[in-house]
Amino acid sequence: MGFLRNAWYVAAWSQELSDNPLSQKIIGEFVVLYRKSDGEAVALADMCPHRFAPLHKGKVIEDQIQCPYHGLRFDPRGKCQHNPFDPKVKPSSAQVRTYPVVERDKIIWIWMGDIDQVNKDLIPDYSWINDEKYTFTSFASMTQSLDYRLIIDNLMDLSHAQFLHPTTLGNEAMAMGGTTDEQKEREVVSRRLNVDGEAPTLFTIGGAAHKGDRVDFWNDMRWDAPSCYYLQVGITPTGRPRDEGHFIQSAHLLTPLDEGRTIYRYLLGRTFAHGIDEITTGMAAVVAKAFIEEDEPMITAVQERMAGREFWDMRPVILKSDRAAVMVRRAMDALLAREKA
Amino acid sequence: MGFLRNAWYVAAWSQELSDNPLSQKIIGEFVVLYRKSDGEAVALADMCPHRFAPLHKGKVIEDQIQCPYHGLRFDPRGKCQHNPFDPKVKPSSAQVRTYPVVERDKIIWIWMGDIDQVNKDLIPDYSWINDEKYTFTSFASMTQSLDYRLIIDNLMDLSHAQFLHPTTLGNEAMAMGGTTDEQKEREVVSRRLNVDGEAPTLFTIGGAAHKGDRVDFWNDMRWDAPSCYYLQVGITPTGRPRDEGHFIQSAHLLTPLDEGRTIYRYLLGRTFAHGIDEITTGMAAVVAKAFIEEDEPMITAVQERMAGREFWDMRPVILKSDRAAVMVRRAMDALLAREKA
Amino acid sequence: MGFLRNAWYVAAWSQELSDNPLSQKIIGEFVVLYRKSDGEAVALADMCPHRFAPLHKGKVIEDQIQCPYHGLRFDPRGKCQHNPFDPKVKPSSAQVRTYPVVERDKIIWIWMGDIDQVNKDLIPDYSWINDEKYTFTSFASMTQSLDYRLIIDNLMDLSHAQFLHPTTLGNEAMAMGGTTDEQKEREVVSRRLNVDGEAPTLFTIGGAAHKGDRVDFWNDMRWDAPSCYYLQVGITPTGRPRDEGHFIQSAHLLTPLDEGRTIYRYLLGRTFAHGIDEITTGMAAVVAKAFIEEDEPMITAVQERMAGREFWDMRPVILKSDRAAVMVRRAMDALLAREKA
Repeated sequence: MGFLRNAWYVAAWSQELSDNPLSQKIIGEFVVLYRKSDGEAVALADMCPHRFAPLHKGKVIEDQIQCPYHGLRFDPRGKCQHNPFDPKVKPSSAQVRTYPVVERDKIIWIWMGDIDQVNKDLIPDYSWINDEKYTFTSFASMTQSLDYRLIIDNLMDLSHAQFLHPTTLGNEAMAMGGTTDEQKEREVVSRRLNVDGEAPTLFTIGGAAHKGDRVDFWNDMRWDAPSCYYLQVGITPTGRPRDEGHFIQSAHLLTPLDEGRTIYRYLLGRTFAHGIDEITTGMAAVVAKAFIEEDEPMITAVQERMAGREFWDMRPVILKSDRAAVMVRRAMDALLAREKA
Repeated sequence: MGFLRNAWYVAAWSQELSDNPLSQKIIGEFVVLYRKSDGEAVALADMCPHRFAPLHKGKVIEDQIQCPYHGLRFDPRGKCQHNPFDPKVKPSSAQVRTYPVVERDKIIWIWMGDIDQVNKDLIPDYSWINDEKYTFTSFASMTQSLDYRLIIDNLMDLSHAQFLHPTTLGNEAMAMGGTTDEQKEREVVSRRLNVDGEAPTLFTIGGAAHKGDRVDFWNDMRWDAPSCYYLQVGITPTGRPRDEGHFIQSAHLLTPLDEGRTIYRYLLGRTFAHGIDEITTGMAAVVAKAFIEEDEPMITAVQERMAGREFWDMRPVILKSDRAAVMVRRAMDALLAREKA
Repeated sequence: MGFLRNAWYVAAWSQELSDNPLSQKIIGEFVVLYRKSDGEAVALADMCPHRFAPLHKGKVIEDQIQCPYHGLRFDPRGKCQHNPFDPKVKPSSAQVRTYPVVERDKIIWIWMGDIDQVNKDLIPDYSWINDEKYTFTSFASMTQSLDYRLIIDNLMDLSHAQFLHPTTLGNEAMAMGGTTDEQKEREVVSRRLNVDGEAPTLFTIGGAAHKGDRVDFWNDMRWDAPSCYYLQVGITPTGRPRDEGHFIQSAHLLTPLDEGRTIYRYLLGRTFAHGIDEITTGMAAVVAKAFIEEDEPMITAVQERMAGREFWDMRPVILKSDRAAVMVRRAMDALLAREKA
């Protein structure tokens, strides 16, 4: 399938990273991450160039990572600085690949492509994660045996929530919601308004509405290439302006491990029921149920039916509600074609 | 390997099917089956043409199946009749493939090939399943990780029972039994007579003979393309005519899920010990033991040794007792060659 | 990858073999071994030429093995001697391949190549296994999901013990140990001396030294093509001659099952703490811990990172300490190239 290389992927939540090496496969490559003594995050190929051992099983000694197999040590620039077999001769060919890393918005971002094309302006904006006006769930992460593109398809068309998540995330007005969609080179923005439906459970359990209340329910989303997805869902009493309502922001950060597996990290921040732990826990449980018991089995069955065939080759029927998801597929196809050329 | 497509496969026992959708992979294709409100069985591709979701996870609403992912509804002819995103516009390209289905002899038969070549005369005869003069075991089904052709080989040469099932199905006279075999285009019939051996356990547990009794033991079988196998086994005191003895009819209905997995459905009907549940249960247990503990591990080991190679490419030694099994392989090769041409 | 065929592999420890057939996959081939009534070991292909059944599931009757599926019997030369379907006609094409076998030094050796190239002089010398001056651990065997060449690499460079087995087999002087290495056509000998380090646990638990004692620690090893490895490790007080110290001999006998799995058989014989069972048990436990908890996960991770690529294609950094391992790889490459030609 081919992954976009000149792009920022999420390597970890900030809180996952310490001076204890962290192993993470990303678009098929083995990567090890750790923090230097000054706190800065670094990323190297998780494979010693000598006998291909996993560096993450080694120790970090004075900001250098020591191979657990034969003891070679590499500095944060990937250069061999210690050779236990001959301390005077550091093998000059023993160079480990390094990856540019940026820590921002409590996320460790990693650049998987050419060093000379690194562009920090391409890091998507998740600055709201730093905003104390929200009450957040804990930083979540799950590994799914799924092609990340099918998860993106799923997220880009929330109308499915009416059918797949009727008791949790969706309401019966969703299929008929109208959207406005905009595509840029590396970004798709889609704003959906579902008019006059029942308040979804995700809001009623937090007291933002009562069960049975009629609401306008908005879903504003943004996809950033290659695989980050931001969502704001909110409700307001039918016909009333948004600022009389409540909303939840969420980050859905996908990191393809390889062609068949994806790490899905997510976080929710809400504008209501602040500081009430039971509501935080309940909301996280509702979301986890929808993701794990409803979305994942559905996408797994889709993937099984596609049986390795490409999406467009299967000539899918395209509906009005597919517009944003198709925009993402077109944007990715264009980016991949440009990268290859 | 290639499957015969213009052929009837067993999709289910009648009793497996209700208005609750049933998912069944058949020769590599995902199929969903359900009954309409008038009881008629229908079969469609188990894949929505929109986003390739598994239709069998959806609901049947007024004889139409609703996709569980985005709510499109398809009628028994596979035509989209409801589009929740735009009720006035039913997507004209949203057509699901359908499969001809016939319900007969408590079996749901499905035609996997060209619609214009459907031929109900090719459905094998299992009318004895409707005959009240037999006492039947319950409708059984098991999934085996086996190439269905090796199961057919196993069934077509029952002489193996002397060695593989000595305490259950076979007796010591089997290897020397004589057969008469006949091959037609889509049918092989083989009649075996094993003279003057001890009555097999399958008969003694039902009181059709006593342990140690000497009997003539007949095995009359019929294979119908592509993968149905009918068997009558009977005993009579050595040298006596068959109508002084007892027999058991059985159906062995194989449905290849894909190249490596097969559903094996079977049913036994006997002429003796009528209405005694413990004997029915005991007989089913004897057969299940032979199939699951003896045949399946043996065929698994054979398959492992073949390691994906074709049977004839391995230049097998052919014995007299292989005649019927070889006829089946030849008949299938001819049918497949014709279908390809 | 290709295996060397004209070579002796270890099929079993002598004590594993009886008149009960033993199944063993070797370099991708199914083999069955058993002892005749006179005790002699024989090896045949573990696949009946009729229907490819596993012969090892059958019985040995008068030194012949009877197929468990249809009862054909084969003698130790692989010739069909009994055909239950027609006792007068033994199918002449029913010939099972046999393998030359030699039992020596409590090991069953098998020749996997051309019969006319069998050469008993190529069987490596493990006569010390018969020597009563050693106290032995029990005959051990484990199956690892590893390419056997990576296990050989591991064994041929013991300097890794300093980093991977610091609390069991290695000491801190190993990386700097000096070696002399010699390569012959089918043999590599390497003698390593690690000067003035702490006595390794493997010796202190047996009382050959006290914890903290300074010792010279030698590791003399021999690899024999394709996959047998002999090791003598010993300690003597720093600067003293070897005969004032103690040593442990060990056999490490690798049998590739196929490209991804290897059976690792091993045995240790020591010159000290004779006849003390607790020390034998403790020593075996130390070695098993190092092999199973340290070596195997490390090599598994290396193999995962190699992802099916060939060692040289990955352009490994070569260190001084790799010399003997590289000699083995070169010797094997030469032997394989010659065999192909």
